[in-house]
Amino acid sequence: MFGVTILGNNSALPAYNRHPTAQVITLNDHLFLLDCGEGTQMQMNLYKVRRSRINHIFISHLHGDHYFGLPGLITSYGLLGRVHDLHLYAPSPLQNILGLQLSVSDTKLPYKLHFHSLENETMLIDDEKFSVESFRVFHRIDCWGFIFREKRKPRKINLEATTKYNVPVEFFERLKQGEDFIFDDKIISNEILTMPNKPSKMYAYSADTLFSESLAEKVYNANLLYHEATYLKDKSDKAISRFHSTSAQAATIAKLANVKKLIIGHFSSTYETLDEFLSEAKEIFLNTQLALEGQTFLIT
Amino acid sequence: MFGVTILGNNSALPAYNRHPTAQVITLNDHLFLLDCGEGTQMQMNLYKVRRSRINHIFISHLHGDHYFGLPGLITSYGLLGRVHDLHLYAPSPLQNILGLQLSVSDTKLPYKLHFHSLENETMLIDDEKFSVESFRVFHRIDCWGFIFREKRKPRKINLEATTKYNVPVEFFERLKQGEDFIFDDKIISNEILTMPNKPSKMYAYSADTLFSESLAEKVYNANLLYHEATYLKDKSDKAISRFHSTSAQAATIAKLANVKKLIIGHFSSTYETLDEFLSEAKEIFLNTQLALEGQTFLIT
Repeated sequence: MFGVTILGNNSALPAYNRHPTAQVITLNDHLFLLDCGEGTQMQMNLYKVRRSRINHIFISHLHGDHYFGLPGLITSYGLLGRVHDLHLYAPSPLQNILGLQLSVSDTKLPYKLHFHSLENETMLIDDEKFSVESFRVFHRIDCWGFIFREKRKPRKINLEATTKYNVPVEFFERLKQGEDFIFDDKIISNEILTMPNKPSKMYAYSADTLFSESLAEKVYNANLLYHEATYLKDKSDKAISRFHSTSAQAATIAKLANVKKLIIGHFSSTYETLDEFLSEAKEIFLNTQLALEGQTFLIT
Repeated sequence: MFGVTILGNNSALPAYNRHPTAQVITLNDHLFLLDCGEGTQMQMNLYKVRRSRINHIFISHLHGDHYFGLPGLITSYGLLGRVHDLHLYAPSPLQNILGLQLSVSDTKLPYKLHFHSLENETMLIDDEKFSVESFRVFHRIDCWGFIFREKRKPRKINLEATTKYNVPVEFFERLKQGEDFIFDDKIISNEILTMPNKPSKMYAYSADTLFSESLAEKVYNANLLYHEATYLKDKSDKAISRFHSTSAQAATIAKLANVKKLIIGHFSSTYETLDEFLSEAKEIFLNTQLALEGQTFLIT
């Protein structure tokens, strides 16, 4: 499974039972946390997120609504007796803040916390089965988007062909990796014995950003794009002055980037209801959904 | 009105929809916030606390479950356009932490935040109508309890007597302050013209503490005492090693201190239900109630 579960979809000021930003990415056996606004650990309780399986946390930027829930989560992991390592990717000043908070409370974490500073657009994790990259977005302070990529799976066995050519089951793993089958001086080409697997999938998270067409390149062809949509058209000026986007701008990026599907969030507390966010986006990009809290969007 | 509204009654690890510590004291027109665990601003939304009327916040100690909601609240005040001063009473390292958090997010608060370091047992606020004092409690790190005292009200006018002696209404304010009435060389004593008002009331908040009989002196005769009760008797050993109290110990302090009423909170997440906290306390001090979230306890 590859999907994203929304834990918080509001901008800075919590309102109307909407919470500050947090999302959990599920990629096969891995869980990743993307931003961690105040109350994220309670939202995890509410939506039954298996938090112990999260080993990597990504913080896009140091506005409080994207990380004020992190010290609590880190402390709670300690109280829950976590022993396995936790990797944190965030702008560097966060390390100092967390260090101070742990020190004044005389807290010794029972697990190792690895801090990775976000400084350049780079590959953050390059695993056998997935990768995570950072890309720069345009906000009032240093801010990062993230791309989660499922790696191209190995090829699938063509059982009809392997039976025909008597390929032993023990050789299947090597076939999946692309090897030809050589037997009695005969070479059976890999392409005969296997079939291509489904293409890799990609999730892109735009964090908080001013509208910029250049972002469409970064998230090009994503299966699912989350783009912030803090305001409606009526507050386009405010979007510019606060380095945020409107719903229509999020949809424009989705269209330019040729993504399959768009989800929008980070709604301003100015708006009690969200219907207009959806309608303004859909005028430009039809396959848009609101990033509603508790909802899981499959990346297909 | 003099009362306390519970916003969070759990210990460090949020569970069973119980939240970390926070309470709002209402004293006539004033609201005070006592501790500010993660999610306090959302609890304020839920229980319709008029947060703009809070001008004084008291943080007992720097374990995260007592202050991780503060950066968010302070930032939200800014977003809500607060302009009037906010006074914060807390252990001194918090000033540095908050300063860093505001600085890395490039946040300029539109109001003045006054930081008052808790360093000694002292009178923190000495207003005409109320006072707030700090007292030291016994925890793993520096930790403070607080006493809120309504000041003795002026005397009440005895209308029968003032009519009899023809005291003009303009003189009533001076009568309330204790002056005698002098008219044509006759002195009418204040005691004839006024009646004593109801006695002053007192609320005491014990914060997080190891059981210590010495605390009974500090909170002696309180109308309402909040005392932490993290564990039941079954975990008395753990209470000692973690510098916390059991429900029975909280009740013992209430009894020794001759308080009118006890509320208990800061329940460990080990316990899903709270009934036994109440029964273990009531065996020792009958007038005990659970500090349930959303509930307001009048101080009478």
